[in-house]
Amino acid sequence: MYKTKAYSAASKSSPLASDTIPRRDPTDRDVQIEILFCGICHSDLHYARDEWHDVMPAVYPAVPGHEIVGKVTKVGSAVTQYKAGDLVGVGCLVDSDHTCPNCQAGLEQFCPGQVLTYGSPDKHKTAPVTYGGYSDSIVVDERFVLRIPSNLDLAGAAPLLCAGITTYSPMRHWGVTKGKKVGVVGLGGLGHMGVKFAHAFGAQTVVFTTSPNKREDALRLGADEVVVSKNADEMQKHTGSFDFILDCVAADHDINAYINLLTRDGNITLVGAPEKPLPVAAFGLIMGRRSLSGSPIGGLAETQEMLDFCGQHHITSDVEVIPIQKVNEAYERIVKSDVKYRFSIDMASLKSD
Amino acid sequence: MYKTKAYSAASKSSPLASDTIPRRDPTDRDVQIEILFCGICHSDLHYARDEWHDVMPAVYPAVPGHEIVGKVTKVGSAVTQYKAGDLVGVGCLVDSDHTCPNCQAGLEQFCPGQVLTYGSPDKHKTAPVTYGGYSDSIVVDERFVLRIPSNLDLAGAAPLLCAGITTYSPMRHWGVTKGKKVGVVGLGGLGHMGVKFAHAFGAQTVVFTTSPNKREDALRLGADEVVVSKNADEMQKHTGSFDFILDCVAADHDINAYINLLTRDGNITLVGAPEKPLPVAAFGLIMGRRSLSGSPIGGLAETQEMLDFCGQHHITSDVEVIPIQKVNEAYERIVKSDVKYRFSIDMASLKSD
Repeated sequence: MYKTKAYSAASKSSPLASDTIPRRDPTDRDVQIEILFCGICHSDLHYARDEWHDVMPAVYPAVPGHEIVGKVTKVGSAVTQYKAGDLVGVGCLVDSDHTCPNCQAGLEQFCPGQVLTYGSPDKHKTAPVTYGGYSDSIVVDERFVLRIPSNLDLAGAAPLLCAGITTYSPMRHWGVTKGKKVGVVGLGGLGHMGVKFAHAFGAQTVVFTTSPNKREDALRLGADEVVVSKNADEMQKHTGSFDFILDCVAADHDINAYINLLTRDGNITLVGAPEKPLPVAAFGLIMGRRSLSGSPIGGLAETQEMLDFCGQHHITSDVEVIPIQKVNEAYERIVKSDVKYRFSIDMASLKSD
Repeated sequence: MYKTKAYSAASKSSPLASDTIPRRDPTDRDVQIEILFCGICHSDLHYARDEWHDVMPAVYPAVPGHEIVGKVTKVGSAVTQYKAGDLVGVGCLVDSDHTCPNCQAGLEQFCPGQVLTYGSPDKHKTAPVTYGGYSDSIVVDERFVLRIPSNLDLAGAAPLLCAGITTYSPMRHWGVTKGKKVGVVGLGGLGHMGVKFAHAFGAQTVVFTTSPNKREDALRLGADEVVVSKNADEMQKHTGSFDFILDCVAADHDINAYINLLTRDGNITLVGAPEKPLPVAAFGLIMGRRSLSGSPIGGLAETQEMLDFCGQHHITSDVEVIPIQKVNEAYERIVKSDVKYRFSIDMASLKSD
């Protein structure tokens, strides 16, 4: 066991502050990583502030962060895939049971025994729960370590580990390819990645937004068209035409307006989770055999596939790089959706803290 | 043009009564059918009473009926598939545009130019709108005529044309086969067919009902297990275990309770259409990548496949056979769900009316 610097919340009402946390010494299968950048996901706030108490009660000190990129500093004797100096990433998962049907299928995101990067009971007993990426270093089983293509900007690559795979996975699952018409609802951290992927897959990409002033940016990110969702006439023109819609909105919104835009057998997938149930009209689903679904992150194999795809297509997240000392300010801005489109923490700032 | 006996509603508040309606003389491609049995679908009531005014306003006189079986009496010169004396069926559609992508795919149920068996503008101008199966005879384009396997009881075969295909089609679409675990919610006209099909496909079949007294009947129809949905403990035991659930409930109900019973990638399909939107919790869909969809009837090719499957597996609807003179009484009983499980009108009764 060794000590490493981190930023943690001491209680649900405390700002994040400098701290020292334990990490295990690498076991035979472990990879020790010096963290270079860590993206800030909205989940980080929810956890630090214990806003998801019912499904995932926070344990303090709480160290968030699951969009991690870094450099390998040491590997265990049985590690075969990585060596010191490699550029690697860690996403939302650091372990699973490896035996359930989901794990067997390479879908560790559905494993009932999954270990989240932060806030899950720590199997290694280094601490009561796992500590995330707002930290100098982390030690992870090599099966949960991913390779970062060397051509990617590391600050922009960090959010791929959660925002990237969360948007990539459902598009792959529901068959987004060239020739398909794809909508992305909401242009935030998730949505802007959805636009980049839909465009890179060759799909006709349409962004739905409530903010007309996001039009230019949406087009720059790869959208072929932007629809202001409050404009009923603009919406009407697209009735029955979408093969797939990625719904990235975590606030209350009219899902039926989007269901009606789907073509026969079209699907709309929720990746944002509004707090209140969404009223869904049966008729819109029945006429057209449409479906509404949800999707969390992806499995390890698919996350690597996504990273490789990003390497080939030069895709990273649009980030605002901040020092760790500005994390609390960043949280306030995230609550106000005031970020284009993700914060990425330069962890070098922690060394001088 | 010729005249034929029928039962029609003269207004939305009128009971159905004896009437005479025009039918076209068979064109080259037409099949003239003497109707032997016609099932009563809940849609018949909605249409006769103009309860679906916004989507399908009734035109009076209204002649419902889209679960038709009968005997061919005459065919046009270009008809190749049928000859006088053949046992045939007609379902919810009597024509489509034949050119749209849906028709090209054999999915006429999604054709924007579809002609419903009753209440659609009549292309042949025999009457303002099409008249359904509560009638002595009907004339239909041979492409919308189906073959009824000779081993089936005709009274019980009639409801296959709507209730049958409505439950068969989504099960085929979502891959119900041997080895899958399938739920059927609601044991009525649709639900009892769903149970028969799920069982015949070899699936482990579970019926959800609010009425414990339907248990015996559900088992008789082919269910392996019956769950009383009001019993939270019974429901809990099935969490995350269903590959597919067919939701046949047209009343308000807690859809999230069923979504949570789905396994990873499981689907629940609505075939009943509750009047009010169903509140759907995003979390239940996201965790497990589950989907909620809807399905109407099926295309012509699939309807024939379903009828052939019924012939092979000796499947018909459980019906209560009534004379046409009891149709208004039957409507009242349908509103109270007082039928096991479908009314089938013996159209011989109309001859003596």
